[in-house]
Amino acid sequence: MTTPSDTTPSGTTPGNTALSNTAPARLTDEEIFSAHEGGKLAIGATASLADPRALSIAYTPGVARVSRAIADDASLAARYTWAHRLVAVVSDGTAVLGLGDIGPRASLPVMEGKAALFKTFGGLDSIPLVLDTTDVDEIVETLVRLRPSFGAVNLEDVSAPRCFELEARLIEALDCPVMHDDQHGTAVVVLAALRGANAVLGKDVADQRVVVSGAGAAGVACAKILVAAGIGEVTLVDSRGVVHAGRDGLNPVKAELAAITNASGLRGGIAEALRGADVFVGVSSSTVPEELIASMAPGSVVFALSNPDPEVHPEVAARHAAVVATGRSDFPNQINNVLAFPGIFRGALDAGATRITENMKLAAAGAIAAVASDDLAADRIVPSALDPRVGPEVAAAVAAAARADGVA
Amino acid sequence: MTTPSDTTPSGTTPGNTALSNTAPARLTDEEIFSAHEGGKLAIGATASLADPRALSIAYTPGVARVSRAIADDASLAARYTWAHRLVAVVSDGTAVLGLGDIGPRASLPVMEGKAALFKTFGGLDSIPLVLDTTDVDEIVETLVRLRPSFGAVNLEDVSAPRCFELEARLIEALDCPVMHDDQHGTAVVVLAALRGANAVLGKDVADQRVVVSGAGAAGVACAKILVAAGIGEVTLVDSRGVVHAGRDGLNPVKAELAAITNASGLRGGIAEALRGADVFVGVSSSTVPEELIASMAPGSVVFALSNPDPEVHPEVAARHAAVVATGRSDFPNQINNVLAFPGIFRGALDAGATRITENMKLAAAGAIAAVASDDLAADRIVPSALDPRVGPEVAAAVAAAARADGVA
Repeated sequence: MTTPSDTTPSGTTPGNTALSNTAPARLTDEEIFSAHEGGKLAIGATASLADPRALSIAYTPGVARVSRAIADDASLAARYTWAHRLVAVVSDGTAVLGLGDIGPRASLPVMEGKAALFKTFGGLDSIPLVLDTTDVDEIVETLVRLRPSFGAVNLEDVSAPRCFELEARLIEALDCPVMHDDQHGTAVVVLAALRGANAVLGKDVADQRVVVSGAGAAGVACAKILVAAGIGEVTLVDSRGVVHAGRDGLNPVKAELAAITNASGLRGGIAEALRGADVFVGVSSSTVPEELIASMAPGSVVFALSNPDPEVHPEVAARHAAVVATGRSDFPNQINNVLAFPGIFRGALDAGATRITENMKLAAAGAIAAVASDDLAADRIVPSALDPRVGPEVAAAVAAAARADGVA
Repeated sequence: MTTPSDTTPSGTTPGNTALSNTAPARLTDEEIFSAHEGGKLAIGATASLADPRALSIAYTPGVARVSRAIADDASLAARYTWAHRLVAVVSDGTAVLGLGDIGPRASLPVMEGKAALFKTFGGLDSIPLVLDTTDVDEIVETLVRLRPSFGAVNLEDVSAPRCFELEARLIEALDCPVMHDDQHGTAVVVLAALRGANAVLGKDVADQRVVVSGAGAAGVACAKILVAAGIGEVTLVDSRGVVHAGRDGLNPVKAELAAITNASGLRGGIAEALRGADVFVGVSSSTVPEELIASMAPGSVVFALSNPDPEVHPEVAARHAAVVATGRSDFPNQINNVLAFPGIFRGALDAGATRITENMKLAAAGAIAAVASDDLAADRIVPSALDPRVGPEVAAAVAAAARADGVA
């Protein structure tokens, strides 16, 4: 058995920590592994089993009346079981953080962390379901069979482009909210952060050209939500350069995006895309040289979201850009999904929504931006990931949008 | 929507309560449904998420180190995730309590109760997984795909004879403890109770003839464990009478039992079986007239375990039998699975067992009987279902048996 200290350190390396203005003391392997010992979740019983009478009420014979009532009227399951408000955090472990395809067992600490975040920031119970198959048909089939066990599905860390098909298939197969958080959670927070940046800078989305670098789960969803939010122009760049309709071998998802982005017909790579651009959204694990950031329009906005290593160091970016954000907690303006997913699922379940619509995602971004607007500055374009106002505000906005869209 | 008070009362009806010496105040629909409101389980986060540093340890970037360590050495999953000690409480809702095939949604309150009992009496986390399929192949396939998500399977309320095939198939397919509690939990507690009764009466199992009425999940398992425990003779009776090798149309499970029971070649029905028998174990939902109980051997033992209505009322049985037990909490000698399953799974998981052997079940029965032996009497042949000593004692005995059997 490998001991924890044998493992290669990742995440906050000494090099990164040295770069940071506001870095906390370096995380040690000892404190990390100690915090994860035994896993990070526990089940609690909310009904008393303390005496024979309580046992008769919560279990036999009392429980038989509840089961019989649900058998007679299936709608009572929503009221008398936990499943209706339970989120299944589902992964096949194929795209875990920046680690790639490490499999379901190794993905489980992330899914447990996600469930802990659902509880802390959304007040929702959730269970990790990690699957020993990467076959889309089999994952869909498995969740259809398990459907009575949960009330919503948070897809997590599934590799692109499978994640697009899987999410679409699950939305069709299940009569409950389904969302791939790596796509839409990221997109919602990026949009909220851009609103915050624009409020600081006095700019309007309709006048902006945004370059999204990376056409995986997050990049595709960011491009889509920015188009839906009325951004002037979006340019999507992947490892082969600008995604445009004339390019050979586009997969269906990129072909769909080529049709709704890059109105000015840009060609080339990231250098050509960034020249004169207003906003950079990096979700690519690549690096961007300083001179390309310098080539952007004056007063530019840089979201360098790769973790643990941003596409461009925020201090370097700040020499040229007016607003800089990253995905890290040790720099200002952390763009973190936890601002979005707990409230989105909470709002959808509060409303009894059967799906999560585009308007619900836009409403979530609006609610995050509204919380930030109370105390806005160039280094405070989004609320803190720990801000307790965010979850309830997002939930309320999402529930209202669900009702307005007629899905609740 | 049906309101709870519209449902037909079951369980403790006024008639049953009137029959009882020690009945608690009648359970009202109001208090039952109120206790089940919102379900009976909640998820808790065991790692702190209270500040940015804690968040960095429990989630990104810290969690990446834990995931990478597990990717490098799969055995670390046992230490750094909850799955290794998590029990999946699995049902298709085809044989729920005495209610029959009410489906997965209506079975969920029972599975949540089971999970609450696992926590309270075994200190184990568990999650209900209720399945919208009754196909054995599909259930096996589903659990194989979910294998990285849990550490053991408690099968529950699956109808016979499918339950026998399903359990056998799962034991073969999964490298973790699997037990159908309706079979083996019941059998273990019946054996423990018989040991208690015999200790009170000064009798030996080798001299006894036991009639098991009912050849469903519980009856089959009771017959098997009694044979394994060295009972003189076991006679199994189903709705068509005594199960014997000469009978037409025996299913494979009954054929197997016909070969190891009824050594004296009895024929006929429950009346013929009970005449002169020493022990009656009723797990059949049928009724047994007083005169048949009267026809048993002197100093007989009657376990009338049907719920909510015992095969014979315990006060009636007590006119003829020396020891009487039921499945109900409102009479003495409650034979309740909760004495067995939390400790069995806890012991198996503590030992790291890959399966649950016959010796582990026998050890569990021995441990339950040993706890009862401290304060034994004709109306105290088993410990109280709430006795906090039972779970740990059963777990220790089961873990020791697992090691002795070489499955841990």
